[in-house]
Parts: sequence; structure tokens; C-alpha cells
Amino acid sequence: MTNQRAGHMNGVNVEQLVATVDAIRRNPELARFRFRAHNAWIDGGHSRTTIQGFYGAGQEDTSRNKPHILEGDEPAVLLGGNAGPNAVEAALHALASCLAVGFIYNAAAQGISVESLSFDLEGELDLRAFLGLSGDVRPGYEGIRLTYRVKSDAPREKVEALCEYVQQTSPVLDMLRNPVPVMVELESEPAAERVLAW
Amino acid sequence: MTNQRAGHMNGVNVEQLVATVDAIRRNPELARFRFRAHNAWIDGGHSRTTIQGFYGAGQEDTSRNKPHILEGDEPAVLLGGNAGPNAVEAALHALASCLAVGFIYNAAAQGISVESLSFDLEGELDLRAFLGLSGDVRPGYEGIRLTYRVKSDAPREKVEALCEYVQQTSPVLDMLRNPVPVMVELESEPAAERVLAW
Repeated sequence: MTNQRAGHMNGVNVEQLVATVDAIRRNPELARFRFRAHNAWIDGGHSRTTIQGFYGAGQEDTSRNKPHILEGDEPAVLLGGNAGPNAVEAALHALASCLAVGFIYNAAAQGISVESLSFDLEGELDLRAFLGLSGDVRPGYEGIRLTYRVKSDAPREKVEALCEYVQQTSPVLDMLRNPVPVMVELESEPAAERVLAW
Repeated sequence: MTNQRAGHMNGVNVEQLVATVDAIRRNPELARFRFRAHNAWIDGGHSRTTIQGFYGAGQEDTSRNKPHILEGDEPAVLLGGNAGPNAVEAALHALASCLAVGFIYNAAAQGISVESLSFDLEGELDLRAFLGLSGDVRPGYEGIRLTYRVKSDAPREKVEALCEYVQQTSPVLDMLRNPVPVMVELESEPAAERVLAW
């Protein structure tokens, strides 16, 4: 287990974690992050997202030598080629990976050693809104159910309190439970192209 | 271009699309989907999501021979090993891939041929909530800015109307703009394990 690396708890460098929190406490500007993604349509339901740079901790990050690539597609029953999970499945991944990091980092900060941690997620969706067949149902999940499974030698009350705390500070859980302003813009084509394209 | 496959528009089988919509119109039960994901923590900020089966169109789907795997991790500045994009970056991917499918499928249904489609996304986040340093900022994105880039021979007004329609019917955009109930449960350990573990 990486827990045994010196100065590490749950694979997290605790000294670096404390130093990061202290640095941001002293200079809140360091807490400002701007994450980015680029997505390009491939064919049918298949699109590909490229994620590499971001701004954070006061500078443009250049630590990633190559981009992370995420494929999105639909399964056959939804007319896709199954080149990747679909968008609402990817949303479940975003939620789970967010709670995983939140739980592990906060456990490390509190000195709680975690042996294993896993999540099962389910989201219920009525496809009629997406297909334009009903204005009475919402397009997204009507609800998401998430089950935590934790193995740790910490007392159950501590694990429960940690789960509760992580829910209050999870970025993706916040974005699901509370409205996020999303500004959508259709980029104007350059004039020359517009003449040709429109 | 796959646009040229017989009966296909933008790589979408239009006949199957029309048949799917008709079948759901006749039997709304077919519109009920339940998507699932399983996530397991690996080490530090690194967790792995497995996505395979789902319920939809009246039955359990078994068309995926192997699961889709998504890695989640943090970059070095956020104490991770960079094994994958982080959770809030994955959320941008979920949004983009959702709008891509929505745009392409609806374009196909309307007979609009799309030459290219891409998105740039940015999300602004203040890390202080995640780090427990401020109760005044929200944990998630304060806002997301998304730019569409479309090449199509359709009139600009039609493309604009399509962008607008896709925004109204996109599952992930709905889940960001409007609250989703998320039920979180900490699974009880079996009695014997509980004695050992807690």
C-alpha cells in the first residue's frame, strides 16, 4: 500500500497538502482555477474531448505533456457506435471521481487511513424530453442514487461525518444539486467563410 | 464522409432514428433509462470508473462486450498523479459530448448536413470551498462558458434555431442549469465485518 510511503496517507503527500492549503489561505488568488476542454464531433453520436492545459495557482499549468482524451458515444440502442460511454454516463463518472478525491484528500488531512473506497451510481432518465416527445419531463436525470462503500479502521461515526463533509464541499455534487450558469455562444464565422457557408 | 452512407445523415441512421422516436411515442415506457457507473479508488487522487450495462428501451442492455473505463485523477499542482482528467474537467466533457450528440441527431432528423462541429469550454472555479477555507464561495463552477463552432450548408438561422433547441433538450445541460436530486448513502457493512472494521 502506498499508505506506507513516508509522509503519505492514502497515497496523498500530506505535507504538500497542508502547504497548499496554507498557501491558499494566505493568498486566496491562488484558489482561482479555470479548467478547459475541447470537443470535436467525429461521426454520428461519437465525439472526442481533449483536455490538457488549465489556469490555476496563479499560472498557466504546463505539466501535462500530452492531453487526456475522452471518447463520447451512444450504445447501439441509442443509434451510436459505442466508442465511449454516453454523456449522462460520463456525468456519473464526474460525480464519483469527485467524491473519491474529496474523501481521500480529507481523510488524509484528518489522519484517517482508507483501505478501500468504491461507489455505485444509478441515474434515472426519461428519454422523451431529449427526443422532443414531451415537455412534461426534464431532459436530465430525475434523480441520482449513489452508494459509498468504505473500508477503514476509523470509527464509523468519523467515516459518516467525513461522507457528510465531502458532500458539502464536492464541486461536481454542488454542480448537480445547485444551478450552474452556462453561457452558450455560437461563434460567428469569419466574413469570407460566412459568405461561403451560409 | 459517412454522410454518404445510404439512409445516413451525419453518420446517423435516419430511418432507425425515426423508428425509435415512433416506437417511444407509441409506448412511453420505452423511454425509461437507468444508467450506471461503478467507481473504485486506486491511490491518492486516482480513481477508475467502469461503465457497461444499463436498463433502457424496456430491457437490460447487454450489447457492450467490455466496459468503458474512465480514469480520474488530479494534476500535480492538485496533488495528483495525472492519470486522467479531474472531475470538473470530466464534467465539461459530459456537457460537450451531450451537446454534440443532441446537435448531430437533431440535425440529421431535420435533414441538416453538418460538415464539422466543435466546442470550447471553460469553467471558473474557486478552490477555497473544496479546501474548507471559505463558506462564501460555492464548491463547483461559478460559471461555464461554451462556444459552438459549426460548419454546415444550412442557413445560419436554422443553425441558430437548432443550437437553441438542443439547449432545451440536452440532459447534461439541464443537469447543470437545474437542480438534480442526488441521494447519497453509506452502505452498512455486514455485521461480522463491522465488528472488525469499526
